[in-house]
Parts: sequence; structure tokens; C-alpha cells
Amino acid sequence: MIYHATATGPVNIATLKYWGKRDKDLNLPTNNSISVTLDQADLRTLTTASCSSDFKNDQLWINNVTYSLDTPRSKQVLADLRSLRKELEANDDALPKIAEFPLHIASENNFPTAAGLASSAAGFAAMISAIALLYKLPTDPSELSKIARKGSGSACRSLFGGYVAWEMGKLDNGEDSKAVQIAEKKHWPDMKAAILVVSDMKKDVPSTSGMQLTVQTSDLFQHRIEEVVPQRYEEMRNAILNKDFPKFAELTMKDSNSFHAVCLDSYPPIFYLNDTSKNIIKLINLLNQSAGETIAAYTFDAGPNAVIYYEQKNEKFVLGMLHHFFSHLEGWAKYEPQNGVINDSFPLSALDREVYSRGVSRIILTQVGEGPTQTNDVLIDLESGLPKSN
Amino acid sequence: MIYHATATGPVNIATLKYWGKRDKDLNLPTNNSISVTLDQADLRTLTTASCSSDFKNDQLWINNVTYSLDTPRSKQVLADLRSLRKELEANDDALPKIAEFPLHIASENNFPTAAGLASSAAGFAAMISAIALLYKLPTDPSELSKIARKGSGSACRSLFGGYVAWEMGKLDNGEDSKAVQIAEKKHWPDMKAAILVVSDMKKDVPSTSGMQLTVQTSDLFQHRIEEVVPQRYEEMRNAILNKDFPKFAELTMKDSNSFHAVCLDSYPPIFYLNDTSKNIIKLINLLNQSAGETIAAYTFDAGPNAVIYYEQKNEKFVLGMLHHFFSHLEGWAKYEPQNGVINDSFPLSALDREVYSRGVSRIILTQVGEGPTQTNDVLIDLESGLPKSN
Repeated sequence: MIYHATATGPVNIATLKYWGKRDKDLNLPTNNSISVTLDQADLRTLTTASCSSDFKNDQLWINNVTYSLDTPRSKQVLADLRSLRKELEANDDALPKIAEFPLHIASENNFPTAAGLASSAAGFAAMISAIALLYKLPTDPSELSKIARKGSGSACRSLFGGYVAWEMGKLDNGEDSKAVQIAEKKHWPDMKAAILVVSDMKKDVPSTSGMQLTVQTSDLFQHRIEEVVPQRYEEMRNAILNKDFPKFAELTMKDSNSFHAVCLDSYPPIFYLNDTSKNIIKLINLLNQSAGETIAAYTFDAGPNAVIYYEQKNEKFVLGMLHHFFSHLEGWAKYEPQNGVINDSFPLSALDREVYSRGVSRIILTQVGEGPTQTNDVLIDLESGLPKSN
Repeated sequence: MIYHATATGPVNIATLKYWGKRDKDLNLPTNNSISVTLDQADLRTLTTASCSSDFKNDQLWINNVTYSLDTPRSKQVLADLRSLRKELEANDDALPKIAEFPLHIASENNFPTAAGLASSAAGFAAMISAIALLYKLPTDPSELSKIARKGSGSACRSLFGGYVAWEMGKLDNGEDSKAVQIAEKKHWPDMKAAILVVSDMKKDVPSTSGMQLTVQTSDLFQHRIEEVVPQRYEEMRNAILNKDFPKFAELTMKDSNSFHAVCLDSYPPIFYLNDTSKNIIKLINLLNQSAGETIAAYTFDAGPNAVIYYEQKNEKFVLGMLHHFFSHLEGWAKYEPQNGVINDSFPLSALDREVYSRGVSRIILTQVGEGPTQTNDVLIDLESGLPKSN
């Protein structure tokens, strides 16, 4: 017999950045962070977790490709979930003893891997949610977020929809380092996001080693985590609660700048922004200037891709401008160009369209979304225990 | 009758950066800075200052092009010098009363303006030195540096040769904000510099408005000037006194990173480094790694040009590597490629030569040099009072 359950996991994009670990093994961060969970209609991982006494060992397939679960992080996640199941089984004789059964886990992303989007957050959120359903664990997202955190730090924020904080916590064992929801999607449903996927040949410094280098070598980093971020965290939380977009946007851009500044202050310096990223920053600054208020915010993670947040009511201005430069890209299906408006004061004629449209390979139009949910899909063939399309 | 005198002024390139003014009118900085004065055989301004009762008004020619002296900064510089001359005249009846005569000043740079090198430091140093000679002023460089500072902040460091500090001072009137010599050229004569002139179409934020923006908006800036730079200043000063190149180089690179980090942390962010600058940083890091010690240091001012400092004894490695990527550039006349050595552990084959050689338009090979000196050249025609080649 094969036990199984299926769940989704969303992508989240931080607006107050996680950069720096106080404990590398437990993925405990040096500062609080905040993110927006994105709509799973556009970006999600779908995962079926199954287990059976007939299975030989734990196995994972993502888009039908085998991935190892024999990594310290994945093993820790599975061990934590099995341990919770064992507690349940010990307290309830009616429950089948499945905790020690090998797991077969099949995942599918609805976005191209080539998009270069960090899919580990969605992946861990979906996998943990699916196994929690399979094991009938209590599904408090904050509790599950602690397990996700051990898998991939920022994955913990993908256990919630809407507007999410990762509280860094103070305890050495990390039990208070978890995600909490600042506000549901329905509190501020008008938040939209346009992701500009920037092509870059060069390999970035992986974020785990990059943040260690920053912690160890940047002379500005301690000031960021001790003085700058704590205040910004409170301000951003309030901006979300007050749906104050100009404030939220300013803080988001400043924190992206600050994060990349401490990367540059590392030794040797780490660069995630390239000339294309800089051009996008300039376009957003000019857009806000021409609007006379802050209607769009850029943010960049550990790579050159830009995420532009804006409110629905300003979509005509934000996408109007972006479409002028990036109409050649894939990803505009949802957008009707005739709705676009480019403000007269936007200095179109001063910007070389060929230069500014360079280096971006795709646009993804999305919005704030919900957290992981259970679905009726089954990605595992219940006869063979292998991925269905395998 | 035309009175005249001629002097040279050198370029200086900061290794501990000046970024931020505590007084905009007096050009008083928020932190101490350190620079190396470069050899005037390669980079210098030559200036003849002349004055006559026959002249109609103050005039300046640079490379035979007329420039206005009717700017607040230039007027302040000339007023200060005239005021010192008047004191002398008041105390010595034998001196001709020339302080109020209009000045005709002719300058020539020995480097192409197209090189994009900030020539204002060399220009003010030469002009002030020439007028000081014309007026027979006491020529203590620290005293003259205070006048140069009012013309263009970092120009004050060009009044000395060798290794120079600009002490920020504490007084409101700026009388203690002046250049001092840390060490003469002969103390550490082996310091070489290779300048990679990076072509960039985009206009940078001018440094004066850029540093004001950083002071006003960067959350990391105060920490830089209060905590990071004061300690680095002492360490760099000692590294120069001890001729400790690896330490000097590390501090130089870290301070360049830190300066560009607070630019990026400004709002909106300021970018002076482009993808070409980043590639040069990577090449220098790889060079140092392959050498097993720090044999070269990059530094970038408010623009994408790279200055690479190294010691004579390592020239074969530093120029050997640079020549591999940049042999197509103008500026190699002094270098004999057969002397170049590329360490086996330098990952040449992993670096796409076409990518890394892109975006640089010229190399200038130079070294530590002397301060302003008097010369017998006369750039002003003593009949017409106009530049000779006019």
C-alpha cells in the first residue's frame, strides 16, 4: 500500500533581505526579514509525498529528474518530520506506523527552470506541506516553517501566503526562529509583481558562501544588522499594516540597496547586480520621478533578476513603461498594451531603447498570493511508486 | 610689464577615499583620506601664471581652450592667494604691488583629456603653485593645500609628492583641514600604478552631488566615517611607513569597496562601477590568489576607471597578466612583453579573453611621483599676454 498526499508551495520574494547566518547548521539568521508570497497560479511547486513499506529508500524527483535527498539539509528536514509523526504514532495506536517507511517524493514546477528563479523556497514549502499532510501532522505554518528554515533559510517564509516575516529569534536551538504572517493576502490584495529575468553568463557566488563572506569581512555589515534592519523591520511591518505603498516601496528599495552594498563591502567583493540590473533601477527611479510619487519598487536577491512591486491601480503606468522597453519578451500574455500609459514627464527620448532593453530574457507578471494548499493531484503512480510521467 | 612664473602639478589617486563633506562651501570632508601622488612624467599639468597692469581681467586657458575663472571656487582660490600677496606687499615696500593685477593663466596637460582622468587636482595644484611662485609666497605645501582644498577637495593632496594624507580637521573655518606628507617618494619608490581607462557612455553622478546624496541618505555612511575609516587611516598610514604592500593593498581594496558600497546604499543608489570594472576586480583577485599573496591592489574613484597599484618587483606578474587581456590598448610603450610572467595557477583558460578585455580603452603605466615643481617653461607670450600657441 502506498500512502500519499499532495500540496503546493509558493515562491516568496524578500522586501527586507535575509543575508547572514548566526548559526550555519540550523540556518539561524542575523536579522529579521520580510517577504511577499507570490501567486501560485504563476509560480509554484506541486509535490506529492508518498511512502510505503515496499519502497527501498527515500527518493525525490523534480520535473521527472532524480535529485538526491542524501544531503545534510534534506536529511534534517525528513528526520524532523518523521520525528513528529513518531510522536503521533506513539500517542495513537489507531495510526498506521508509516514514519519509517521510505518516502517517494515527486515535484513539478509550473515555471521554467531556465527562468533562474530560486525554486528552493517553493520546493521545500511544498515538500514539507505534503509530508505534513501525509503524516497528518498539526499544520501550524509557523511550526512547519522551522523545519523549512533548516532546509533553506528563506523557505520558511513560503509556509504563509500574503505578507510574511521571518523572526530571527534569540534561542541557540532556533526554536523561536520562525515565519509569522504579518497580513493575509486579502488585507492588501492589490500588490502586483513583475519579475524581469536577467540573463547573465557569469556564475554568482552562491548565497550560502556569499553571506558567510559578508559576515566575516564586511566592516559595514554589523551596522546593517544591528542598527539599520531592526528599525526598517518595524517601519516595513507598519507600512504593510497601513497599506502605505510609497513607504513600503521606499523601504524595499533601500533594503535592496543596503543588502547589495554589504555584498560589495565584502572582501573580495560580491556583485549580484550587473549593468542590466542598474539600468532597471534607473528606469524605476525615473518612473517614480515622473509620477511625482513612489508607484513602483525594485528589489534584487542574490542575482541580477529584478522584481518590481506595484499596486494594481498603477499598473497602466508601470507596465506601460516596462512594455515600451521589454515588449519583445515572453510573458506579456496577461497584459493589454493598449492600456499602458507613459507619463509625458517620463524622459523616453533621453533613453536609448536598445541599451535599456538589453539583457532581459523574460517577464513574469504576478501578484501577492496564498500559502501552501492541499490538492487532489497525484504525481506518483500508485502502482509503481514512481513519478507518473516517468 | 608681465610678471610670470611656472609650476607643475601632479595627479593623485586616493587609496583611502574622500567621500562626504561636512562643509560644502569650504570643502571640509567628513573623514581623513590618503593618496599616492603619481609621476608627472606621465600625468601632470604645467601652468604659467602671469599678471600685468595691462591685462583686462583674470583669464584661464587649458590646452589653449578658454575656461571661466568666474566660479565661486576659482574666485575663492584667487582671492586667498591675492590676500597673502597683499600681506607681503604691506610688510615690504620693495615688493611690486601686483596683487590686484589681472591674472593670465595658461595650462597644459600632458595626458589626453579623453582619458577621462580627473584633472582638477593636478590643475589646481599647478595653478596655485605657479601663483605662489609669481607672488613669492611662502611655499609650505600644507598651507597652500588649504587653498587648493577650497578649489577642489582632493586637489589639496596634490601639493605633496609621495604618500599624502588629507587631515579632515575639526575647526569650523577649515584652517586645520590640510594635506600632510606621510612619506616622501624616496621612502617607498617602488610603488607602481597601472591605470585602466574604462570607456563608459553613461554620465556619472558628479562627485559633489553624489557625496551630498550619500551623506543625506545612506544608512551605512555614518558608520563608515565614524568607525571604519578612522581605524583604516591609522592602519594604512602604518602600512606606508612600514612599506607593507600586502597590508596597504588590502586596505586600499577594502576602502574602494566600502566607498562604492555607501554609494550603492544611497537613495537613489549611485553606481560608479560597471561590468568592466567588476571584471578588472575579478582579474586582480585571481592574480593575488594565484600569487599566494597580495601583489596588486585595485581602486576606483567616482567613475569606472581602475587604478592598479603594485610594487616594481612584481611588475612581471601584474603587467604580464594585464598584457594578456589588454595588449590591444594604447599605452604599453614602456613595457616589454617578453618580461611578462603568468603564473601557472592563474586560471587563464577559465577566463574568456574576449569578455575580460572588453570595455577598456587605454592603459597608463606610471608610478609614485614628486609634488609640484617650478620650471623654466613659459606658456604665456610675454608680448601679448596670451597663450603662446594661441
